[in-house]
Amino acid sequence: MAVCEILSVGTEILLGDILNTDTQFLSRELAAVGIGVMHHATVGDNDSRLAQALHLALSRSDIVIVSGGLGPTADDITREVCCREMGFTLKRDESIAQSIRSFFEARGYEMPENNLRQADVPVGGTVFRNKNGTAPGLALERGGKCVIMLPGPPGELEAMYRDSVKDFLSKYSDGVIISHTVHVMGLGESAMANKVRDLLDMANPTVAPYAKQGEALLRVTAKASGREQAEQLCKPVIDDILSRLGDVVYGIDCGNTETAVFSLLRERGLTLASAESCTGGLIAKRMTDLPGSSAVFSGGIVAYTNEVKMKLLGVKAQTLDSFGAVSEQTACEMAMGAVRATGAALGVSSTGIAGPGSDGSGTPAGVSYVAVSDGERTVAQRVETGRQSREFNRHVTASRALNLVMTFLHQ
Amino acid sequence: MAVCEILSVGTEILLGDILNTDTQFLSRELAAVGIGVMHHATVGDNDSRLAQALHLALSRSDIVIVSGGLGPTADDITREVCCREMGFTLKRDESIAQSIRSFFEARGYEMPENNLRQADVPVGGTVFRNKNGTAPGLALERGGKCVIMLPGPPGELEAMYRDSVKDFLSKYSDGVIISHTVHVMGLGESAMANKVRDLLDMANPTVAPYAKQGEALLRVTAKASGREQAEQLCKPVIDDILSRLGDVVYGIDCGNTETAVFSLLRERGLTLASAESCTGGLIAKRMTDLPGSSAVFSGGIVAYTNEVKMKLLGVKAQTLDSFGAVSEQTACEMAMGAVRATGAALGVSSTGIAGPGSDGSGTPAGVSYVAVSDGERTVAQRVETGRQSREFNRHVTASRALNLVMTFLHQ
Repeated sequence: MAVCEILSVGTEILLGDILNTDTQFLSRELAAVGIGVMHHATVGDNDSRLAQALHLALSRSDIVIVSGGLGPTADDITREVCCREMGFTLKRDESIAQSIRSFFEARGYEMPENNLRQADVPVGGTVFRNKNGTAPGLALERGGKCVIMLPGPPGELEAMYRDSVKDFLSKYSDGVIISHTVHVMGLGESAMANKVRDLLDMANPTVAPYAKQGEALLRVTAKASGREQAEQLCKPVIDDILSRLGDVVYGIDCGNTETAVFSLLRERGLTLASAESCTGGLIAKRMTDLPGSSAVFSGGIVAYTNEVKMKLLGVKAQTLDSFGAVSEQTACEMAMGAVRATGAALGVSSTGIAGPGSDGSGTPAGVSYVAVSDGERTVAQRVETGRQSREFNRHVTASRALNLVMTFLHQ
Repeated sequence: MAVCEILSVGTEILLGDILNTDTQFLSRELAAVGIGVMHHATVGDNDSRLAQALHLALSRSDIVIVSGGLGPTADDITREVCCREMGFTLKRDESIAQSIRSFFEARGYEMPENNLRQADVPVGGTVFRNKNGTAPGLALERGGKCVIMLPGPPGELEAMYRDSVKDFLSKYSDGVIISHTVHVMGLGESAMANKVRDLLDMANPTVAPYAKQGEALLRVTAKASGREQAEQLCKPVIDDILSRLGDVVYGIDCGNTETAVFSLLRERGLTLASAESCTGGLIAKRMTDLPGSSAVFSGGIVAYTNEVKMKLLGVKAQTLDSFGAVSEQTACEMAMGAVRATGAALGVSSTGIAGPGSDGSGTPAGVSYVAVSDGERTVAQRVETGRQSREFNRHVTASRALNLVMTFLHQ
């Protein structure tokens, strides 16, 4: 199996200014085509450290993908350093220079002259077109090693990978790695792992437990010469896992809760609307992250204040007075209100204390109520994360709300 | 200046299953206290590769922070490998074992026995308490080098860093690095860089341009013996930048658009409501990401369908017929509708084609309209990203909508 190392270049990454999503994207894509990734590394915009990191990567990997540092500014040195270290010379490509000029003209901007550095390409190398930006990607192959340079902005890197690099790499992928992920909600990582403990020692497929934002996952990964053989290795193990874990599994390879809900709603021909307090739009945002979500998601109401809860969702003043905004009763009235307000088949709601810190009512951060209603039947659930993190609490509350939609429909 | 390397451990990172946010968090925190980070590295749950990566890191850095691999399952090997390589022996700590048992009891779960591995601590090392999980953090100091092991889950790592590790590291930070970020919207990275080109060659402070999700940033970073001296180095340079860039600057160190809007609304004592189509709750989600947002954010309506636009926001059928849902007129009526529906002082709206792909109307993906209204005066703006990415288009549209709130209030 060919081994690849991903080398990120950028002082802004070392300073923590940007999150390195490129490396995650590339890792996932490479795993899918059977190219193993054993190391990630990051260095700043520094000539000698980049050169050292490149040589180290070449000493232990067949392919090195270098992301970032191809831009127009003076601190962008990836092109020059990689070509120098691999023994390639650079030459200005007039057609790329022209397309860079056109890119600026089409947007009505004046082109700063330094942009033309991005038209310098290695003689004897491969050039990948950048349809979302100005810097092309480049590949250098010599002595059985391959160095691929890709632009840092994720929109440019991801499109370029899908459009050109994936095909370019196909000659390096012998065999296939297939991974399937079993998604679990309502059981901790170690309790889950304990139920499948003997499976964790297998060699092919491997079974590995993970924890991810209030959920637990089991990843089943098989290697084989072809896709079908790899699938045949996975299948009996996944069946075994499902029979052991039962209904805490909410999906396989569904990516996340919203995708599972989306599929189920589409299958049933139903629409959903949200009524959110503590999640503040996150449920709607996650549903509408999915292309085509307009078929199943009507809309929603972010009822951050009690006034909006009453006015737009019809929550009764008496309910708020007697039980409080953070209560099962309020969650139920909100879910019913979402159905009434939007005409959707189902309403899903959230109300709770996102944190950090309590709201002074005595209810701790991380406590919330979620509910689902079809206008007649309404079910609610209490969520308690035990955490202070606002982001974590909001994410988990939204996930539990969406999971309750599935439970509701399966009842 | 002490140099630190961040070493992430986890096959799930190499497979691209999880995004490495720990490394970003640590990088930012270390930069803030004047500890330089020159390398990031990631290896899988593999004994010899972890040992090699640790030795490489120790050869070029004073401090190595190892994140991940401290959990209860068999593939968690960080504790054992780091202690072995640094020459420390492990011993079961009965009080930690007891607190792990209590952690499970409090949640009503049975404790799998393997969890007690997390109570093994190095003799002569330092132990950091984990208030959000079971695995404590550990530090080993020997021969002028320091290895710190932290649990991988971000909620645990971040809290532990803030509670204990930051203080522990203070002896290693001599001098201070201060960074300020100038946030720019409506000018590309290279056009922005061109206006400050001579500043990009300075040594202290350094000035570096970045592009980030449809925005451009200039980062000004100074090193000095104290905070005040570093600030004095930054100030004249930032003033110079502001005078050159003018009103495309929307904030300094404001993190993001929502934080800038939040501050301005609080300063003016105003409330905001959202009416979202293509951003599908993202504007509300971003506003309510901020603790205390209930003081300035009343709520919002996600009007994904035309029915909801008419019913909840009062958009006229004739407007939708004549101009379409994706139009300046619809955006304006939605913003006005948000004010009417919620009673907030200001309404902000979005309607557009998030993509990928068009909706068949001929309007390409990435085109949207955003508007802001106070019920009497309404302003709108056309946004055109030129991109297919749904995530990018939604993010940029939400940012422009929020930016328009600031422009509106400054007019």
